[in-house]
Amino acid sequence: MSKDTQWKYSETEINQEDYLKNESLMTVSNGYLSLRGSYEEGNMSYGHQGTYLNGLYEFHDLHYGEKFTAYPDKSQVMVNLPDPKTVKFKVNGESLSLETSKISSYHRELDLRSGILKREFVWETYTGAKAKICSTRFASSVEKHLICIKYEIQFYQGEGDYSIESTIDTNRHNISKEDDPRIGVEFNHNPIVILSRGLEDELMFLNGETYDSKQKFNVYLLNEYNVDGIKVDTETGILQDQFGDDTSIILYKYIWLDKNETRDSKRAFIALKNKGYRHALDKHSQWWKQQWEHMDVVIKGDKLMQKAIRLNLYHLTQNVGKDGLTNISAKGMTGEGYEGHYFWDTEIYMLPFFVYTNPDIAKSLLMYRYNTLEQARSRARQMGHKQGVLYPWRTINGEECSSFFPAGTAQYHINADIAYGIKLYYEATNDWKFIQDYGMEILLELANLWLDMGQFDHQGRFCIHEVTGPDEYSCLVNNNTYTNIMVKNEIEFLLSLIEKCQEESSGLSLKSMELIQTFEVERAKRVIEHMYLAYDDTLKIYAQDDGFLSKPVWDFAETPKEKYPLLMHYHPLTLYRHQVCKQADVVLAELLQPTMFTPEQKKRDFDYYEKITTHDSSLSNCIYGIMAAELGDLEKSYEYYMKTAKTDIEDVHQNAKDGIHAANMAGSWLGIVYGFAGLRIKDGELTFNSKIPKNWEEYSFHLRFKNQVYEIKVNQNDVKIIEKNC
Amino acid sequence: MSKDTQWKYSETEINQEDYLKNESLMTVSNGYLSLRGSYEEGNMSYGHQGTYLNGLYEFHDLHYGEKFTAYPDKSQVMVNLPDPKTVKFKVNGESLSLETSKISSYHRELDLRSGILKREFVWETYTGAKAKICSTRFASSVEKHLICIKYEIQFYQGEGDYSIESTIDTNRHNISKEDDPRIGVEFNHNPIVILSRGLEDELMFLNGETYDSKQKFNVYLLNEYNVDGIKVDTETGILQDQFGDDTSIILYKYIWLDKNETRDSKRAFIALKNKGYRHALDKHSQWWKQQWEHMDVVIKGDKLMQKAIRLNLYHLTQNVGKDGLTNISAKGMTGEGYEGHYFWDTEIYMLPFFVYTNPDIAKSLLMYRYNTLEQARSRARQMGHKQGVLYPWRTINGEECSSFFPAGTAQYHINADIAYGIKLYYEATNDWKFIQDYGMEILLELANLWLDMGQFDHQGRFCIHEVTGPDEYSCLVNNNTYTNIMVKNEIEFLLSLIEKCQEESSGLSLKSMELIQTFEVERAKRVIEHMYLAYDDTLKIYAQDDGFLSKPVWDFAETPKEKYPLLMHYHPLTLYRHQVCKQADVVLAELLQPTMFTPEQKKRDFDYYEKITTHDSSLSNCIYGIMAAELGDLEKSYEYYMKTAKTDIEDVHQNAKDGIHAANMAGSWLGIVYGFAGLRIKDGELTFNSKIPKNWEEYSFHLRFKNQVYEIKVNQNDVKIIEKNC
Repeated sequence: MSKDTQWKYSETEINQEDYLKNESLMTVSNGYLSLRGSYEEGNMSYGHQGTYLNGLYEFHDLHYGEKFTAYPDKSQVMVNLPDPKTVKFKVNGESLSLETSKISSYHRELDLRSGILKREFVWETYTGAKAKICSTRFASSVEKHLICIKYEIQFYQGEGDYSIESTIDTNRHNISKEDDPRIGVEFNHNPIVILSRGLEDELMFLNGETYDSKQKFNVYLLNEYNVDGIKVDTETGILQDQFGDDTSIILYKYIWLDKNETRDSKRAFIALKNKGYRHALDKHSQWWKQQWEHMDVVIKGDKLMQKAIRLNLYHLTQNVGKDGLTNISAKGMTGEGYEGHYFWDTEIYMLPFFVYTNPDIAKSLLMYRYNTLEQARSRARQMGHKQGVLYPWRTINGEECSSFFPAGTAQYHINADIAYGIKLYYEATNDWKFIQDYGMEILLELANLWLDMGQFDHQGRFCIHEVTGPDEYSCLVNNNTYTNIMVKNEIEFLLSLIEKCQEESSGLSLKSMELIQTFEVERAKRVIEHMYLAYDDTLKIYAQDDGFLSKPVWDFAETPKEKYPLLMHYHPLTLYRHQVCKQADVVLAELLQPTMFTPEQKKRDFDYYEKITTHDSSLSNCIYGIMAAELGDLEKSYEYYMKTAKTDIEDVHQNAKDGIHAANMAGSWLGIVYGFAGLRIKDGELTFNSKIPKNWEEYSFHLRFKNQVYEIKVNQNDVKIIEKNC
Repeated sequence: MSKDTQWKYSETEINQEDYLKNESLMTVSNGYLSLRGSYEEGNMSYGHQGTYLNGLYEFHDLHYGEKFTAYPDKSQVMVNLPDPKTVKFKVNGESLSLETSKISSYHRELDLRSGILKREFVWETYTGAKAKICSTRFASSVEKHLICIKYEIQFYQGEGDYSIESTIDTNRHNISKEDDPRIGVEFNHNPIVILSRGLEDELMFLNGETYDSKQKFNVYLLNEYNVDGIKVDTETGILQDQFGDDTSIILYKYIWLDKNETRDSKRAFIALKNKGYRHALDKHSQWWKQQWEHMDVVIKGDKLMQKAIRLNLYHLTQNVGKDGLTNISAKGMTGEGYEGHYFWDTEIYMLPFFVYTNPDIAKSLLMYRYNTLEQARSRARQMGHKQGVLYPWRTINGEECSSFFPAGTAQYHINADIAYGIKLYYEATNDWKFIQDYGMEILLELANLWLDMGQFDHQGRFCIHEVTGPDEYSCLVNNNTYTNIMVKNEIEFLLSLIEKCQEESSGLSLKSMELIQTFEVERAKRVIEHMYLAYDDTLKIYAQDDGFLSKPVWDFAETPKEKYPLLMHYHPLTLYRHQVCKQADVVLAELLQPTMFTPEQKKRDFDYYEKITTHDSSLSNCIYGIMAAELGDLEKSYEYYMKTAKTDIEDVHQNAKDGIHAANMAGSWLGIVYGFAGLRIKDGELTFNSKIPKNWEEYSFHLRFKNQVYEIKVNQNDVKIIEKNC
């Protein structure tokens, strides 16, 4: 295998401790479907096989000891599907198991450059036979329904019988509930009903449906062997034969998964299969090659960081939904943490990467919000708002899945985050048509919500009560500074667009036109002007919320290491009662709105909040790292950056088994681009304030901004910003 | 039947609409056991048979979509037991059913003076037979395990066969979950396991156990007939015989229920039975007669109010646990609302009635808190407190059952409420021994909690963050004024006791001595001195909490009547976001601490909060009524009083079916004693400021204070306070 280690995520032994983590990290996906990096043989007692379709969910009943109005009845859970990659290989009656068989020369690597997972090892059977097994898989980045697996066997010792069964294994389940609010649900039924399964010519098919949510899906499998005089049982798909010491077998598995959205899927699948494995592989690799041209970040002088950033960008790119109907969940499709839900992580953490490297994907993410506007409208009514929309805190299908509203529905900032995403996309792309057709409608409805929900107090200040900001260690607060800042910015942006509409021939969608008619422009202007931000005149810092600074500071000195993350060890009331932050809140707002605050202000806020932030959320380190760079503390910035970039590759939180930390991965990109390179948009223009960590030789990356591609190259001596031909 | 209607709660027809309500209101209980006022015949399709033992609960698993540290795993639910009152009466093969049979001359009345429920009616069978049936029941107030029923049948037309089966019906269940946070649970198992049942001589027995909580109970039944030549089948307990037009049968049912706490229960039961029905009845009535001498409130000139107050006092007295191991639940033992849980209702609403009329019961209620101190200690540790105890917001066995902590566990004021109860009891009884043996220990532990939880802020003010006050329409607030006031008072009281201990020869319990050693007296003094109370200098009112007055006022004009109670129609966030109160909060604090505030202050606070209080809690009207009286608005006070006193008797909230509103019932006593008569303790002495509603001729009641009984008699001309011989 290749030595080009900075493009490879690999392992050289089978290690129970790392196995689940690497199942997550070695996932192959294309944003539509995914396979966790489990073995084809499937019989690892400590593994968790996972096959997922983005957006395919089963309902899970939510129970409440005390249930109040507008509590969601059901959550949506990403379903673990029947497993089509399965290969059961027997030699002289002995089954291959990478857990119990005698295995040597094991090596597995994910080639990040091409999105191909390859594994090889030698198996010595109890009967003395030896075979080298090599399997290769990829989830086609070009044909979204397609997965290909090449399973090669080379005997080089012994003789006897062997059998190979390539099948769809239905004995796969979602992980069960753990005593951790972040993981798992308990279904009281099998989430999947198999409607039919069988063999049509050589095509093995399974048509299924989720039990309660009634979502149909299909799994197809075509097997192709290179063996002469092949003896495959057409009923079972089992190949049985004799082997000698130079027998070699190659099995190609073509797999198709769909959500029953196309009619002629079998025919389409057969046509793809007929083009052959090599064809599919080449097109797939080609796609990845092109992606890396836009998106690669090259780091010279730090091999681990080079590999880490590539692993992270690989996962962002492969896990993101690209069809405007799906999104990217907190764990991608690499595990079942957070039940496969989409959060604000998308707009605030991941979207910038796509906006600047692949704006089509960025647009499709925003289209997902547009396509779920109706659910957000209906949610706003449930929540008692007379107008506007309220996006769900966590969701798959656009409906709220949050069962603990203080750290869920109360995070109204999701609305402002989506607005921020639209603004970012528009500023970087100038895609006015998107604004006309979709963006304007979303923005108007988002603003309508704030106008309904916020209130001018008796001093004339616009206040937003009873929300939760990004920091979930303080819930149900008044005037969360992050929220108020983001809302101010959102409405400013909207008003600027309304002005632009009036100047230009409009071309707005009918719905936007209607909404503009009734939009309270004057009130919106007053909101901007009088938006209340909680500021402490003594400390000269922004308070995270009205009551925040009145609370006692958490006793960090008395908190042993093993009590982190705090949420796993302290009741929410204990956390809420103290000044202690799970993650960046005020500091994040100041990153996102760079021109609203003086450097001195940002410094004071950074210094204050850094002391009380635990970074128990994986969304925190990257933000602190970026702000440290802005504030001139490159050493500190680098420390935060290291923590960010290593989160998954070194499994810092010991929970990569449940899936990647997708937002944090994006944070490692932000850490370089916003952090070290100091990218900010100011007055609609790209600006940089670039630095380089002292142990790096050079880093470089590409950005697309207003239809121009730039290469940014920073070394210890200088900074180059090069305009490229698109 | 008697015409003395002011002692009778009665009905003259079988009315589906009122049936469940009257099942609740016609409950007979003695604080140890209870029977809802369901018919012996048991076959009402719209009824809910209920047989309960105070303190006997089954665990119910609590589920959370997202579960955090120290969330309770299980709730406790008062169990509906096998029903021993059952009588199945057949004539010529036709079963008597008060729902479907031809019934006339129906009358049922609960004699409040004697605690006896009597029902009579005439049944005309399809075969033309006519019988008058009269049944009488009481739950012995003297023998806590005993219930007696007399079931009389007088035929006066027709002839043929009849049969009577007197049995224990095991086909009884808890009410199932409704879409109302206040009612019902869903057991996924039968909460009761029958360990054995059978007949021993004539004693029908059933030994049972709750499924998960493993609490044993026994139900015994002895039947006695007055019929000559009786033909009772010893296996089934069925009496079968012929009747003519003057046949008369009397069945005496002796019922015994216990929690398996005594060994020789069968023998004890038989001994009681052998003394006969009349004996038991006389002793029972005698007890009630004595109670009424202490506790009756006589109202002349308002028959409905006279009846209402008696119904209310009857229920308080019969439903209260009297053994120091049980308490009185929000619904007594009259229904399954709030799952049979005990709340702060006890100390703040019900305890005063017992303190002033029956201090032994008051003491036993406080002993319940003493006896669950260990659970409260352990709960404080779970909640991260280094010292002190935290009482559960809702419980049966002393462990927290609240599954929604913002309106549950966060109500830390329960601690201060219990302290208040101890102070009230001590001030009214001078029971120094109780303080020495028990009270001091509780008070020290309660105060320890506050010293751990509260903090001095940078201005040196003692603050209590992140709690919920009595008003559940604002949750998780800082410096709830009610809480802070009550804590201040609680610690003042404790310090005065500590001083007294130092003056006198101590005699304290060992545990209290230990606790005093480490108690931070100086810090406690500083807490009192610097307790922060949120005061608004512009409005010159106490803010309910730090952020309360900054929120917009609820739009009452736009809220239609059918949207009340608000909690059933609006998401908590909508409620929390507004100035809107479910119930008295600041106003309650000012009632409980009468000397802390000027009359002008109380008036301003009353006027402000009254406008924004919905009284959606049944704990509210009584408090507003009392304060209106204090502030001189007798007319308004009377209106509130009427609403309070009528809550159950006229089923104002349409939910008496789930049980009485026990705290509100006590509120009707407070409304007279604290409200119209104006009782306050000031500097340890009784004071009165008595008034009388203009349409009443006179009201009078007795109070016991420091071993002296007083009769207070108020008419339109004067107020008499008469010292009585004890």
